[in-house]
Amino acid sequence: MRKVVISGVGMTKVDQHFDRGIRDLFKEAVVKALDDSGNPEISHYYVSNAYASLISDQADLGPFLLEYAGCGCTPVTQIGGACGAGGNAVLEAFEAVASGKSDIVLVGGVEKMSDIPQKQVTSVQSTCMDQEYEANYGLTLAGINAMAARSYMQQYSATREQLALFAVQMHKNAVKNPYACLPFEVTTDKVIESFPIADPLTFLDSSPACDGSAAVIMTTPEIARTLTDTVVEVAGVCQSIDNVGISERPSLVTMRSTVDAAEKAYSMAKVKPDEIGVCEIHDAFTITGFIALEDLSLVDRGKTGIAVEEGTIAKDGKIPTNPSGGLKARGQPGGATGVYQIAEITQQLRGEAGGTQVEGAKVGLTHNISGFGSGATVGILKR
Amino acid sequence: MRKVVISGVGMTKVDQHFDRGIRDLFKEAVVKALDDSGNPEISHYYVSNAYASLISDQADLGPFLLEYAGCGCTPVTQIGGACGAGGNAVLEAFEAVASGKSDIVLVGGVEKMSDIPQKQVTSVQSTCMDQEYEANYGLTLAGINAMAARSYMQQYSATREQLALFAVQMHKNAVKNPYACLPFEVTTDKVIESFPIADPLTFLDSSPACDGSAAVIMTTPEIARTLTDTVVEVAGVCQSIDNVGISERPSLVTMRSTVDAAEKAYSMAKVKPDEIGVCEIHDAFTITGFIALEDLSLVDRGKTGIAVEEGTIAKDGKIPTNPSGGLKARGQPGGATGVYQIAEITQQLRGEAGGTQVEGAKVGLTHNISGFGSGATVGILKR
Repeated sequence: MRKVVISGVGMTKVDQHFDRGIRDLFKEAVVKALDDSGNPEISHYYVSNAYASLISDQADLGPFLLEYAGCGCTPVTQIGGACGAGGNAVLEAFEAVASGKSDIVLVGGVEKMSDIPQKQVTSVQSTCMDQEYEANYGLTLAGINAMAARSYMQQYSATREQLALFAVQMHKNAVKNPYACLPFEVTTDKVIESFPIADPLTFLDSSPACDGSAAVIMTTPEIARTLTDTVVEVAGVCQSIDNVGISERPSLVTMRSTVDAAEKAYSMAKVKPDEIGVCEIHDAFTITGFIALEDLSLVDRGKTGIAVEEGTIAKDGKIPTNPSGGLKARGQPGGATGVYQIAEITQQLRGEAGGTQVEGAKVGLTHNISGFGSGATVGILKR
Repeated sequence: MRKVVISGVGMTKVDQHFDRGIRDLFKEAVVKALDDSGNPEISHYYVSNAYASLISDQADLGPFLLEYAGCGCTPVTQIGGACGAGGNAVLEAFEAVASGKSDIVLVGGVEKMSDIPQKQVTSVQSTCMDQEYEANYGLTLAGINAMAARSYMQQYSATREQLALFAVQMHKNAVKNPYACLPFEVTTDKVIESFPIADPLTFLDSSPACDGSAAVIMTTPEIARTLTDTVVEVAGVCQSIDNVGISERPSLVTMRSTVDAAEKAYSMAKVKPDEIGVCEIHDAFTITGFIALEDLSLVDRGKTGIAVEEGTIAKDGKIPTNPSGGLKARGQPGGATGVYQIAEITQQLRGEAGGTQVEGAKVGLTHNISGFGSGATVGILKR
């Protein structure tokens, strides 16, 4: 396997871009990433997306996006997997370079959620669940997370305030992120008192479904040296899966996919959890962030509530978590989320993260899931 | 690049499986392919599908299908690209083995179209077009093909009867295919007189949207020798793209994607068009079959009508085309189509194609497109 590095990244603001289509967003991210990487010739494009066929009536995204972005007849692979599509595409792109199949690849995630009314978002997002056995009976993704929150609170004597405090921290981080969708502060009271989504989770426990596009260019260290001075190594990236139906799972406070993918990624990167200096995790809801931190072995089981209270996950804490604001406050652009995380951690390790910069971070982690962890991809990046 | 061979294939009947779900179909094909290949351990799964998020409300297919098929926590990549998804996944799977990234991969295509009323199929299939610029104004995929048919007939003085005769040949082939959706014979009169879809094309010029799943296992020749006696080499597989919007194209009687992918695949496989002994091409409509044969350099420009009349594309002709019956009569199972083609040609080159067997075929070609050729993948297989 060859070493793989990131030679360029590009992002659009995560937002509700009512005035722009899916290809406009993709083009902006791709042009920025190419520019950031000295405009190399790309040998293969990977496009990740979750819901364009449902939302924008576009099922064949490869040619559709490449044509508009001016990428020529380069081979392109469209990768799905709901909100985990970005991570899946990052894995495929990484392996393309690592194996020698391709020399320079671009992975571009894009999502356009604002083409449908907000109230349809729940139904669109439920396509990552088991329709026949669970969603058709009225269960929603928020409902699963609410059950997980109840289960977690009971099992570990965690408090409602601790969950809310996670959201408070994410919003605080997002204020400094020019790409964030919700760059404003909230209080624990405001989180708890905002309208209920699925009790105990409220509106402000939930991540907003957003539009956005992020692109990352991967290549070998040798080629990267000819393109740019500031490369970041992809030391590990691994994927695993869990049962889609939650009725098949032994517990709601852990996801086998994350645990398995993380173990493999740490081993691949030869990194221990306590060496992680910054991470971007998949906090679709506040509780999902709790579960992720523990499944990734960054926080002890049942201790995330206390860790949040003690400032452990703050930007200057022991485990700086989601300096971007995370899904909660940067926003959740579906199949682009996993690519945003890689772009953000790359900027962190380059020391180019501006107001969100975590001082001295040398090793970073990304964590992207689909549904309630049906699939999970964990990446480890090194300066 | 390592050599890549196919060590096992499996297919379900192409049909309207009203009594079976998408995961039942996938499981049948995967179990058959694994059994055909001596049940090896798969290192990576590639799942191709076009419309499950629109039709079955399932967007995250990897974990969903693998869990039910009993495939464990193996990494899985979900690949889209409308009706070209199968070809895209075949390319990705091939490159995974060729590059050394994976040793044994399974590519499984699956589609379930019968969960929606037939009259919604046109709207679902239009997601492979440019919605904003063309589909929203009322253009359909059948409409594009009808314009192409008019253009072809005028440019080359081809007749309506010649187009119909292509359908007659496909139905004749399908009679011998136990997996075919429409295994009955038709006459040119019946084709021309069946109800109009988009003039001049009728119902019997069009391929039926079907359910089905096909799986193919790819590995190296060295590993394959330990699994099975009958391997087929994947000598070449290449993809290219064209403008999605037809208003951007200089001609409707050729597809740049097919021409480009075919040139690259012939060159990669070191095979000339006149060495192709059997082919499975993407005849979504009769005219699409005409254009494909010419873009693949199997028939001279404008001469397909005469070739069909002279029996050139019949099973015992010079260029045996779609012995399965093709999309026209085997049926068109969306994102599984490109995988069916590989499975079918593999059986042909093994001499195990039963009633559809083309005598003495040593080199076979597959051709899978999305939309009206927005993307095209051409594969070349050798005995």
